[in-house]
Amino acid sequence: MADNDFKTAFAPASIGNLGVGFDMLGLAIAGVGDRVSARKVDNAGIVIREVQDPDGNPHPFLSNDAAENTASIAAAALWEALGDGSGVELIVRKGIPLQSGMGSSAASAVAAVVAVNALLNMPLAAPDLLEYALVGEKFASGGLFADNVAPSLVGGLVLCPRVLLPDMIQLPAPDGVSSVLMHPELQVNTAESRKGLARNISVDKWLTQQGLLAGFVAACSQEDIDMLGRCLRDEIVEPQRANAVPCFADAKSAAHAAGALGCSLSGSGPSIFALCRDADASNVAAAMEQACHKMHYDCESWISPLATPGAHVE
Amino acid sequence: MADNDFKTAFAPASIGNLGVGFDMLGLAIAGVGDRVSARKVDNAGIVIREVQDPDGNPHPFLSNDAAENTASIAAAALWEALGDGSGVELIVRKGIPLQSGMGSSAASAVAAVVAVNALLNMPLAAPDLLEYALVGEKFASGGLFADNVAPSLVGGLVLCPRVLLPDMIQLPAPDGVSSVLMHPELQVNTAESRKGLARNISVDKWLTQQGLLAGFVAACSQEDIDMLGRCLRDEIVEPQRANAVPCFADAKSAAHAAGALGCSLSGSGPSIFALCRDADASNVAAAMEQACHKMHYDCESWISPLATPGAHVE
Repeated sequence: MADNDFKTAFAPASIGNLGVGFDMLGLAIAGVGDRVSARKVDNAGIVIREVQDPDGNPHPFLSNDAAENTASIAAAALWEALGDGSGVELIVRKGIPLQSGMGSSAASAVAAVVAVNALLNMPLAAPDLLEYALVGEKFASGGLFADNVAPSLVGGLVLCPRVLLPDMIQLPAPDGVSSVLMHPELQVNTAESRKGLARNISVDKWLTQQGLLAGFVAACSQEDIDMLGRCLRDEIVEPQRANAVPCFADAKSAAHAAGALGCSLSGSGPSIFALCRDADASNVAAAMEQACHKMHYDCESWISPLATPGAHVE
Repeated sequence: MADNDFKTAFAPASIGNLGVGFDMLGLAIAGVGDRVSARKVDNAGIVIREVQDPDGNPHPFLSNDAAENTASIAAAALWEALGDGSGVELIVRKGIPLQSGMGSSAASAVAAVVAVNALLNMPLAAPDLLEYALVGEKFASGGLFADNVAPSLVGGLVLCPRVLLPDMIQLPAPDGVSSVLMHPELQVNTAESRKGLARNISVDKWLTQQGLLAGFVAACSQEDIDMLGRCLRDEIVEPQRANAVPCFADAKSAAHAAGALGCSLSGSGPSIFALCRDADASNVAAAMEQACHKMHYDCESWISPLATPGAHVE
């Protein structure tokens, strides 16, 4: 079999939690993602030929061990269930920084299942790939968290509470709203960050946060952008994680001053996102970057429409 | 001034919490409610001429003291803000049983503000009356809980988290779904019931219940009746209150066996509600009543479309 037997899939980065929906709401991001190429080989099992960095060089931190990579683990789950008994060889091209809060592990898992799906005689519809991608994500995050996997897979804004898995709900994305995602040059380990969170919350906090999320979901359906902004707040988890990202408070203030509808950590950080009206997006991004630079962190940012496409075969 | 100067408003009973949305989701009920008649009088202030029972007789338990009735307290809040300085006389006709979990105090407060609104030179739109009706409800319940007041005021299915008040969000009501509300001959004091609830919950419970409510709201917008049914559960409050209503467990089992999408306590009980497809409604109601009768409680039930109208001047 030759290299042109490869099927290559792109899976976008994503914003987990989206502030208001801890562990259950996510949004796909345009212009940055991971790619996985997959082809059938004679020897049974899944192997990784290479994991590459964004420049196409061997990745300095990720090994080629198929038992230790979210892409190969997710690919194996799908191929063992529905494959033809042959083997699969993968090439993983990381476009998303590690431990960035941008859904890096999820995007690799998603790109892998979408590429392997293209090798099946009867490929599944994208939503039916969720449970296989989640097997890879579980290896990275330690639990069944779909808020990065789901938007990376199907695009846009996705509600995916654990209690409803493997079902998820694609939310309507109001016209006229963009996301800004800024990645400062810091790393936060999500699994470690999760261990530091409180195990119990007050009933008042529960009702406040639940009210905000329910309001956010309704505001999306009703295209009520003012209400969407009022609801875009995290009263429970953000206060517990904000101190781990030194530029967060200033970037958030700057985003609001530049007209953002809301601003919070992306996943467990260090990336920071804001939602804003389309016309404000470049100002919001510039203000967030400036706040970050003032604290001497390099950063990069991306502006995306809410209705950003999910993973696809290239 | 003569009796024909009276403006009379009807406000429907309602299901508070609707199981999945403790303190923030409610549904109006057809065929049962309170009426308040209001007319202007010369002497400033609000007075109650009479509180009547469903048969038009003086109510055996409610006094005419305007400082002690949700209707007059709500009416006073509106009239003191926007009235012309004259007085108002009220007649309150209770159609809803007390301490029934059917939003009795809320309906009186709503009927009062809607009747008094009709006396204003520039009446407010219904949603703008919410904050005044809440003043009356707060007297009865001890807090700012809008999940009975809001649906009684504007009808249908309403999301009204405290964090968004005085704003509320009217949710689309999927076609083909009915509510069944059954009132067993028991009383539960809501304020007392609230005191018995746990003050803290686990993060797991929070995320489960929040996921269910967010899913319910999305399912309403997408008219996904199966998803609506999957989300119609209360994992936190119902288990703490179920024992106070001896017929609850059997009525719930009977409702599910008869095809209900979901079943829980209405408010703090003792009333029990189910949502179901229209075609199943009479079977569900009969099954719930039978379960109640087996335990030797009298009961009464009402079947309503989700899109039941709210309060109005008659």
